Amino acid sequence: MNSFVFHNPTKIIFGRDTASQVGEETAAWAAKVLLVYGQSSIKQSGLYDRTLAALKKAGVAVVEHGGVRPNPVLSHVREGVKRAKSEKVEAVLAVGGGSVLDSAKAIAAGARTDADVWDLFIGKAKLEAALPVIDILTVPATGSEMNGSAVVTNEETRQKYGFGGAPLYPKVSILDPALTLTIPRDYSAYAAVDAISHLLEGYFTGADEGVPLQDRLVESTVRTIMESIEAIQKNPKDYEARATFMWCATLAWNGLLTAGIGGFGAPSHMLEHPLSALYDIPHGAGLSITIPAWMKYAAGKGNRKVVQFAERIFGITAGSPADKARKGIEALEAWFRKIGSPVRFGEAEIPAGDIPKIAALARDLAEAWALNDYSEQIIAGIYRDCV
Amino acid sequence: MNSFVFHNPTKIIFGRDTASQVGEETAAWAAKVLLVYGQSSIKQSGLYDRTLAALKKAGVAVVEHGGVRPNPVLSHVREGVKRAKSEKVEAVLAVGGGSVLDSAKAIAAGARTDADVWDLFIGKAKLEAALPVIDILTVPATGSEMNGSAVVTNEETRQKYGFGGAPLYPKVSILDPALTLTIPRDYSAYAAVDAISHLLEGYFTGADEGVPLQDRLVESTVRTIMESIEAIQKNPKDYEARATFMWCATLAWNGLLTAGIGGFGAPSHMLEHPLSALYDIPHGAGLSITIPAWMKYAAGKGNRKVVQFAERIFGITAGSPADKARKGIEALEAWFRKIGSPVRFGEAEIPAGDIPKIAALARDLAEAWALNDYSEQIIAGIYRDCV
Repeated sequence: MNSFVFHNPTKIIFGRDTASQVGEETAAWAAKVLLVYGQSSIKQSGLYDRTLAALKKAGVAVVEHGGVRPNPVLSHVREGVKRAKSEKVEAVLAVGGGSVLDSAKAIAAGARTDADVWDLFIGKAKLEAALPVIDILTVPATGSEMNGSAVVTNEETRQKYGFGGAPLYPKVSILDPALTLTIPRDYSAYAAVDAISHLLEGYFTGADEGVPLQDRLVESTVRTIMESIEAIQKNPKDYEARATFMWCATLAWNGLLTAGIGGFGAPSHMLEHPLSALYDIPHGAGLSITIPAWMKYAAGKGNRKVVQFAERIFGITAGSPADKARKGIEALEAWFRKIGSPVRFGEAEIPAGDIPKIAALARDLAEAWALNDYSEQIIAGIYRDCV
Repeated sequence: MNSFVFHNPTKIIFGRDTASQVGEETAAWAAKVLLVYGQSSIKQSGLYDRTLAALKKAGVAVVEHGGVRPNPVLSHVREGVKRAKSEKVEAVLAVGGGSVLDSAKAIAAGARTDADVWDLFIGKAKLEAALPVIDILTVPATGSEMNGSAVVTNEETRQKYGFGGAPLYPKVSILDPALTLTIPRDYSAYAAVDAISHLLEGYFTGADEGVPLQDRLVESTVRTIMESIEAIQKNPKDYEARATFMWCATLAWNGLLTAGIGGFGAPSHMLEHPLSALYDIPHGAGLSITIPAWMKYAAGKGNRKVVQFAERIFGITAGSPADKARKGIEALEAWFRKIGSPVRFGEAEIPAGDIPKIAALARDLAEAWALNDYSEQIIAGIYRDCV
């Protein structure tokens, strides 16, 4: 096992009707808060009103910053930073899914630096501090509720970049599975793909191959996600399945399951980011295309863990390692299709002719993320397997 | 899944040669520290000298409080509290195994209250604050390095009691698997039993039976502990196996694997504490006796998870649920014997005639821990299965 530091100080409050605790939890950090949220859904569900009432009761003043959209954009973050500074808020409260949380985190960091907030994403400025972030999560998928990173798209450059560090861990994350009962079938699928992708990036690319504990924990979580999403798609109001999935998605990307595995990359994310940045498709929908394509590439390079995945997740035990890998990838593609997430460019209306443009963006990201093995040629080759 | 709050702020520094970081990590919390340690082993290994040198280099003044013994005793904790107060130390640094860590935590809490420290254990005083605790762990087993509890024996009353709360989570725990390479064969076995016991208490007794994620994570960790201890007993210098076991033992009792399972008890611990308190046997050696005996009792009451354990850990799939449970318990006993941990009173030189005395102590603990189903008769019955 490799050396590591694990330090995750986020307080998780999990369960039915926990959202009502947002007043006291926020008041412990701030007397005035920037409330970041998305479109109309939290107003329709009544969560918006209940949140405002809880904050008022706890004596917390609110400055609003709604309108975050899926694949959140830099311009909206910049406006939030401006508002947070001019209104002198003491914390940022995110109510929504991963896009809202990531925007809130970026705003929280931008509010504590004189640099332009985008400089934090591209490494021109260093993350030193951030306002405290508190959140009520409504869409489990990204794991943002228990990690220190944020991903935002610069809509001018079409760069979908991330940054992170200790100041960005939420102080408190409130996870009420009942809030997720209305997530539609397709978005439940995309969320499952996203959470699985987080588990698989470290599993497939960790520098240390001798991590039996981490392997088993990842496999356990993948299997439970698959099981719970199938139950959710059968009965969207299945609270138990929603709760199980919600906690799986949090653990999938909170640092625990990559601790000790050594340096690892996120090639499937590197390949996906240009897709959601260019075509505004859901992140999970892009990942169900790039994960199998990347796995074919990795299997071709002899990646042992792709074989182990086939064996342990899909019970494929017959054949050569290459056969098993192929069958495992086919099984994963079939499962993505079954839950309704695309596995080819055509299914997401991505033109094959755009591959050069997409590959150029991915190559920039590969460079930013030190994925040094990925030339533009290799990347374009993987994308051709997505057609 | 049940509602829960999960908040574990301990910073883990894991890996080879990490002990040298103790100076800077301690200096971040204190200019003067109480150094708590056990007997001669850290002096023989050189860790004592290296720790003092690192603290000196970081400008941290040291007050020593050595001499903690296995099954740590209250009188030594009381002396530590006195010393911490009179010397006005700002933190407590534990260098050792679970006994040292638990003593250090109790001292840290005792130093911040006017009540007698034992009052915290028996619920007469409330844990409000504690000095910061930092540690270098040398014997993985109890999980104390990443949780908020401490267990100490009152040698006057023979009560082995625990207490805990947020202030007791170590600020920093340094885990260097290389420090564990010299743990003897029998103590490696007892450590494995202890870690497994932590996993099984919640698994078998959690109020919520519908926790597929937690079940799988527990099973994964149990299997990895079994595998790694077998490797360690084959080759005690196997760094990878030592590292894997060390991290398993930490995760086994840090709150993560019981989050969401609802109220749970620790009956195997309730049954064990009187054994180590009365006969001064290693805690793990007592647990390998009480766990199978308790499992027989639970299987008799129809505990479904004992059957699942037999199926998933030992691959026992044939027979009725009762058959499977029996075979699973036999397989676990055989495995405890194989690694060299006792499974019957006689193997640990505990006189069967003492059962009334032992049962009376256990009954007190059952009351303190609200294990209300356990009358003295039931407890004595389980102990009779240990003979």
